[in-house]
Parts: sequence; C-alpha cells; structure tokens
Amino acid sequence: MKSYSIKELLNKQPIGDSVEINGWVKTFRSNRFIALNDGSTIHNLQCVVDFENFNENLLKQITTGAALKINGILVESQGRGQSVEIQATDVFVHGTADSETYPIQPKKHSLEFLREKAHLRVRTNTFSAVMRVRSALAFAIHSYFQQNGFYYMHAPIITGSDAEGAGEMFRVTTLDTKKPPLNDNGEVDYTQDFFGKETNLTVSGQLEAETYAMGLGKVYTFGPTFRAENSNTSRHLAEFWMIEPEMAFYDLDANMDLSENFIKWVLQYVLDNCKDDLEFLEKRLLDEEKSKPQHERSEMALIEKLRFVVDNNFKRVSYTEAIDILKNSKPNKKKKFQFPVNEWGVDLQSEHERFLVEKHFKCPVILFDYPAKIKAFYMRLNEDKKTVRAMDVLFPQIGEIAGGSQREERLEILQQKINELDIDEKELWWYLDLRRFGTAVHSGFGLGFERLVQFSTGMGNIRDVIPYPRTPQNAEF
Amino acid sequence: MKSYSIKELLNKQPIGDSVEINGWVKTFRSNRFIALNDGSTIHNLQCVVDFENFNENLLKQITTGAALKINGILVESQGRGQSVEIQATDVFVHGTADSETYPIQPKKHSLEFLREKAHLRVRTNTFSAVMRVRSALAFAIHSYFQQNGFYYMHAPIITGSDAEGAGEMFRVTTLDTKKPPLNDNGEVDYTQDFFGKETNLTVSGQLEAETYAMGLGKVYTFGPTFRAENSNTSRHLAEFWMIEPEMAFYDLDANMDLSENFIKWVLQYVLDNCKDDLEFLEKRLLDEEKSKPQHERSEMALIEKLRFVVDNNFKRVSYTEAIDILKNSKPNKKKKFQFPVNEWGVDLQSEHERFLVEKHFKCPVILFDYPAKIKAFYMRLNEDKKTVRAMDVLFPQIGEIAGGSQREERLEILQQKINELDIDEKELWWYLDLRRFGTAVHSGFGLGFERLVQFSTGMGNIRDVIPYPRTPQNAEF
Repeated sequence: MKSYSIKELLNKQPIGDSVEINGWVKTFRSNRFIALNDGSTIHNLQCVVDFENFNENLLKQITTGAALKINGILVESQGRGQSVEIQATDVFVHGTADSETYPIQPKKHSLEFLREKAHLRVRTNTFSAVMRVRSALAFAIHSYFQQNGFYYMHAPIITGSDAEGAGEMFRVTTLDTKKPPLNDNGEVDYTQDFFGKETNLTVSGQLEAETYAMGLGKVYTFGPTFRAENSNTSRHLAEFWMIEPEMAFYDLDANMDLSENFIKWVLQYVLDNCKDDLEFLEKRLLDEEKSKPQHERSEMALIEKLRFVVDNNFKRVSYTEAIDILKNSKPNKKKKFQFPVNEWGVDLQSEHERFLVEKHFKCPVILFDYPAKIKAFYMRLNEDKKTVRAMDVLFPQIGEIAGGSQREERLEILQQKINELDIDEKELWWYLDLRRFGTAVHSGFGLGFERLVQFSTGMGNIRDVIPYPRTPQNAEF
Repeated sequence: MKSYSIKELLNKQPIGDSVEINGWVKTFRSNRFIALNDGSTIHNLQCVVDFENFNENLLKQITTGAALKINGILVESQGRGQSVEIQATDVFVHGTADSETYPIQPKKHSLEFLREKAHLRVRTNTFSAVMRVRSALAFAIHSYFQQNGFYYMHAPIITGSDAEGAGEMFRVTTLDTKKPPLNDNGEVDYTQDFFGKETNLTVSGQLEAETYAMGLGKVYTFGPTFRAENSNTSRHLAEFWMIEPEMAFYDLDANMDLSENFIKWVLQYVLDNCKDDLEFLEKRLLDEEKSKPQHERSEMALIEKLRFVVDNNFKRVSYTEAIDILKNSKPNKKKKFQFPVNEWGVDLQSEHERFLVEKHFKCPVILFDYPAKIKAFYMRLNEDKKTVRAMDVLFPQIGEIAGGSQREERLEILQQKINELDIDEKELWWYLDLRRFGTAVHSGFGLGFERLVQFSTGMGNIRDVIPYPRTPQNAEF
C-alpha cells in the first residue's frame, strides 16, 4: 500500500488504488465524512467511514485536530466539493485532540487570538496558506538569483561594527548582566566579553555583501536582520528577513532593471505555483473587507494586485519630478495629505508613495536621485552635489517595497561623507579598502522579505506572515 | 556591444563578436597579456593589449587587483592554457590597486594571513571557489526540499526559551550594560528589557520546526544558530548555519532514508554544477598535503571522496553493534584510540566514528538506537527503556555530519523525561501542546552547513568556509 501526501493524491488521482494517508481532522460530519488535511495543500481529502464497521470508541476519537492514519480505496466522489475521496477500510488514531481544550476549533478565530497560539496557528487554513506562499517566495528568490549568475552570501549576524546606522541595535553579550566587569575608567570592560569587544545583531548585510560583490561579481544575501526599535505597529518587527543583492559593475540604471525584473519574476513564480493558496487568501481578504467601509477596502483583489505588478512596466521618476507632481496634486492642494508636500528635500511618506502609484501613474514606480541629506552615507553623490543615486521601488498599498542605490565608489568623497557624519574611519577600514583596491561602479538594493510576503498574501499585519514574530515585549516560543 | 560575464563568454564563445567584460586583474605579463577575473568562474579570461596602441600611463595602472572594463574582439587563442581570448581595443580603469599596499599579490598567501583580510580574501582563487561551492550547496539544499514537498520555515533567531540545552547561549539585550535595572529582589529586572524577559540567540530551530511539521507535514529550516562556547578549534564557530528538516508521520527508518537520499542528492548537485571549482580545490588540497607526512594525507582526493558518499549505500548499524565492533577492533586492543572503548554507554568520539567509516565498513554509516543517557530529552524512548531512536550520520574524515531522531510523541513519557532533567514544564508548554493535540510519530535531523561545505571543498579549518567567521575574541568586519 502506497503512502501519499494529499497534494500528490489530488494531482495523480490513482482511482481504484489502495492508498494510505496521514493527516489531521478538520471536520467529522454525520459520523461518516472525515475532512483530512496534512498541510501539503489547502485542500482537504474526504475520507468516508462506514460507521457500522468501526468501533464506536474509535469513532469518538475522530474530532477536529486529531491525527489519523487512514487506509482505503481512492474512488471518484459522489458528493459535491471534491473529485475524489477515500473509502476508508482502516483508521488508526495517532493522537487525539480533546474538543474541550484544543484551541483550534472549526470556527472563525481572530488573528489576535491565533497570535497567542502561534505554535498551533499553522494548522488553520489561513496560516498554512500564508506559510506555503512564504516558502515558495523564498525559493523563488533563490532560484532567480542562482539562474542569473548570482552567488548566495551569508553576511554575519553578530557584528562588531555599528557604522551603518540603519537603526537601534541589540547587544549580544556573555558578560555577567548584574555585575559586568569594569575597566580602569569605570566603564564596562568589553575586552572580557566573548568577542573581546562590544557586539550587536546586524541591521543589514549590505556592507559585507559589497566586499563579496567586489570579488565574486554578483552576490545576494538572504538572512535575518534586527532593529531594536520600540515600534509597536502592524508594519514593524524586531527580527525580520532581508534580501540584499549587490552587483559589481552595475550602475543605477542596471540596478533599477534588476529590481523590476527580479520582483516580477518572483511574483510570477508565486502566481504559477501557489494558485490554490492565493485563491483561498484572495477570498479570505474579500470576506474580511466586507465588514469595512467602502473607502477602506482594497481597490484590487489579491491576484489582480499581483498581476498589476507583473504586467506593468515600472515607471521611473526622479525625486524632483515626483515632488512637483505631489506639490501640484489635488490631495496636497486640498490638504488631504497628513504630511503636506511644500518643498524639495522633504522625505516622502507612504501616503505620497501610494498616491504616485495608485492614483497618478497607476503602475509600480521607481523613484530615483533623492536628496543626499535624507539618504545613507554610502550612496553615490551626483554631479549636482545635492542628490544621490538612490532608488526606491514603490508598490500599491504598501509604498516602499525595496530601496537601494549605486554605491559611492570614490574613496575621497566617501571619506568626506563619513567625516561629516562623525563616523570613525577606523570602524570602516575594510569598507574603505574596497575603494582603495580595485574600486568600481557597483550597486545593490534591499528588500524586506516580510513586506513581500504581506503583499503576496494580503495579510494586513506583519506579525501574521512570520512563524514567530518578535516585537517589543514579545518573544514567546 | 554586449557585456558578458567571463563564465558566459567561456560557455558561449561568440568568436568574432565585439564584447565588453569587466573584472579584476589577476596578472599582467609582458605588458601584453592581462589575466582578468570577474568572480563568475575560477577561470580567467586572457585579454591581449597591443601595448604600442595604448597610453603608457594607462598600462602602468594595470596591476594585480585593478578593476578594468575591456572592450575587444573575442578570438580563438593562439597561446596555451585557454581556448579563447580578447583582442582588446579599449581598456578603461575603474580603479587601481597599488602594488605596494594591496595585500592580495599573485603569490601564495597563508590561510591565517587571509583570515585577517577576510574582506579581500574572496578575490583569491581558493576563497572564490569555496564560496561558489558554498552558494551551490545552499541552493541544492533548498532545491531538494522544495522538490520533495517540504516547506521552508524560518525559526526565530531571538528566543525566550532556553530549554533545549544544546549549548551555552548569547544573551540579547537592550538594557543598560553598566547599570542594569534591578527588581525588588536585587536581581536584574528583565521585565524592563526589550522583550520583557531574558532572551538569547537560538541554538537550534528544531522545537519550533516541530510545531510547523505538525501543521504543514514536512518542513525544513535553514538559518543561523549560535553557541557561546569558548572552543578555539578548527571545527567550531560561535555563529554557524544549520539545516533542520522535520517531518510528521516519519519514523526513524524514514528519517534515515531521507538523510541518505538528501545528502547524496546535494553532493551530486555540486559534482554536476561545480566541476571547475572542485577540480581546482582538489588540486589545492593535493598541493597542500604534499608537505605533510604520508599518514596525515587524505586517503581519497576531493572528488573521489564526494563520489564515495554518492555511490555507496550508507550502512545502518545500531550503537550496540558498533560498540561490539569497536571493542574488538585492532586499534582498541592495541590501545591506539585516544579514548578506549570498554563498555556500552560511552559516547563515541570522532576517532571511533572515522574507524567505522574508513576502516571497518568502508562506506558512510548511520548509527542508531543510542543510549538514552547520552542523547537529548526529546528523542523517542525504545521498548528497552535504555536506548532512544537517535541516529548519527558518519562520514569519512569528519565523523558526524548529521544527527537526528524520531521524536518522543507520547506526552507522559516526555513529561517524565523533562521532570527528570529538572526542566521547567512551563518553559515548554507549547512544545508539550504538540503531544496534547493531534500528536503523531515524527522525526527530523540537523546538519551543520559549514561541516558540509568543509567536506565538499576539502578546507581543513571551518573559519575558511564562511565569509566572516565568529569565534572567541573575534568579530571583526
């Protein structure tokens, strides 16, 4: 007797064969119809038991959440809602699930409730679908880069350098917390710490990825990054995964081409490979939004929104042009923006980015050449000395999905920038070495993986697209 | 004019075409022959400059490590050592590399020296080859699991649970180091820390992976894990990457089948896709070992060793059988083992594992059914009450490459074990929930990624197979 996953069985449909499947009970109706799911697909397999032939005590154990092994014959289904079903000849109960205490009952649970049960929520349709899409997205990312001549690079997680300044950092230490050793100056003596110096969790692998791009040509990172910011919002995690490609000999135009091509390919992969899960999630979102007032609902359904990105060219617009458009826009004139756009130099907010994408251009947008003052020190200064070769990729609903730049490859200009910002050059000796020895035009960008999962699944809260979210006051499991 | 990577150009060989390439100078001979490398392959491309047609100042800038853009015609090479070369019509210097100060000169550098220059060492042949193989291995791992119905799962990096006890942990904190807040008992008040409790870096994602296997069926993690152990050896890192597949409804036999099948597939992928790099690394290892006494040299060359794993069945042997073999073995009787094997119950050392693989069975070995006392609490107890359903996969040269078990799925037995070990049940409430609700036979194993990279590249020190190694007293870059 062959053992199958439900996904295999639904694909192959070996009618008339004796098969074995394992899974968890979703529902058990009329003491006869078991809907079994094993996580391989959103679809359940109906297993029909002739209750006359089974022990009553056994049947009592078949409740939502119980784990079963079922042997039987695969037959065409007479009922509606499924093409095949199993006529069970044998049922073995791996483990029961007491319906009084098992939290995941066949009814609607709030996302908040399920966050408290993060170890069980993947057994629900919504979270199993989200996590399968997440897995497919991750593989699509690796596949794209590997097919296009990039090498995967693991940037360090524990870092002794805090020069990037992308955000607040978590300290990593093995010192005695209560009585840390002090040096002669009365300061904490980090030379006695595990690494002999103060160390933190990385906020970005970019600088290290640059060192590898300047040897391997094209590389990408895909690893966890951390921010110790006290942001209790639906958009922020203290621990999240980032993808950071970095390419030698790429200028900003090539960087923009790559980001567009990459994002489209990855979303097309999900459209091709996660159809069932996307259809389920699209329906979930529609249901959820029914209770909202019209103006708060999504303009596009989930799959339409993915198609919108895949099928449209990304419009490339300079920051300066964008400011002109925004200044003269209706919402700005009618003071509908929370942050009015009055002058060149201001940072753009999500409301502005979404206006450009959803209302003005009606396609994804790449903004470039931002004011130097609102961007990071390593971005390449333009001839005008006011702007840098930065770019942000803007999406409907979420605004910025990726941000990058051509990197400053000129040693003197980079040193000047570092000094202006009071960063210690010694901290960045190795980064500056890249400009001393065989420097070249190079570029890269970063994309927050969870934002991409949110976009692809329609989940509104970032805590619902990662298995175990880490947020202020919360590191359970 | 089309821009190519050197790998593309060597594959396609568009003879007679005008092409553009970018890369770094490996060597410049006779003011005429530039060996250029762009990291896409171990092979350099020879670019021939007619020095009569080029400015002398330009030629002077062509030194090892300089970054160049070269335009020219691809022609068949007249010289030895390459099939094609570029007749350069135009040379642009992106960036120079002063031969007085650039550390990576065309001569043999020690691996120790290169560790100090970890930001530049990927520009050497050895490290570029190692890191390309590393990237291919990572992709092979994802490909294998995705093709076989597994879902990729990101286990949390920051963890509030320290119950697994796999090793010493790093604390993650944002508290004031010098003057941490104290509670009424005079202890550090972790409720004021970022997560409201004491948190550490994960030592393993297994327990969380189990929660996902019990919903999605088959999952795998691939992420960084940490050990704060003061082990300054060539085999240990404080930060390393682990792969941990976890499968519902798999018993130990299925787990052993998977581990064998998985490892063979991944190594075959590298044999198929990294031929040039493996050949280079094999030659490197032979050269390196020439200076060693005969008995310290590898018995097999690198590619032969990979074939040895791919082509042989893994012999499955119980711990009890293995102890008998070892007790009666020549090296044990002649007291050649550093750790003599006298009785059932001892933990096996690398020397014993290697003896079994290299001398006795002459094939990879999977040992199973270890004494409960030397294995972790979550492994399934056998009927004999003495052994658990553990398994270790043993390889030539390195000994244990992977370790796993069938997990204890019975609530009472798991609780008993936890209590015996004085672990607080409350710490593991969610892990125990898996046994309360829909428990089932399940299994998994863990494989240290860097060990696999070492095995595949022949690098003797684990610090040389990860971009930026983290070890006691060392977190540079």
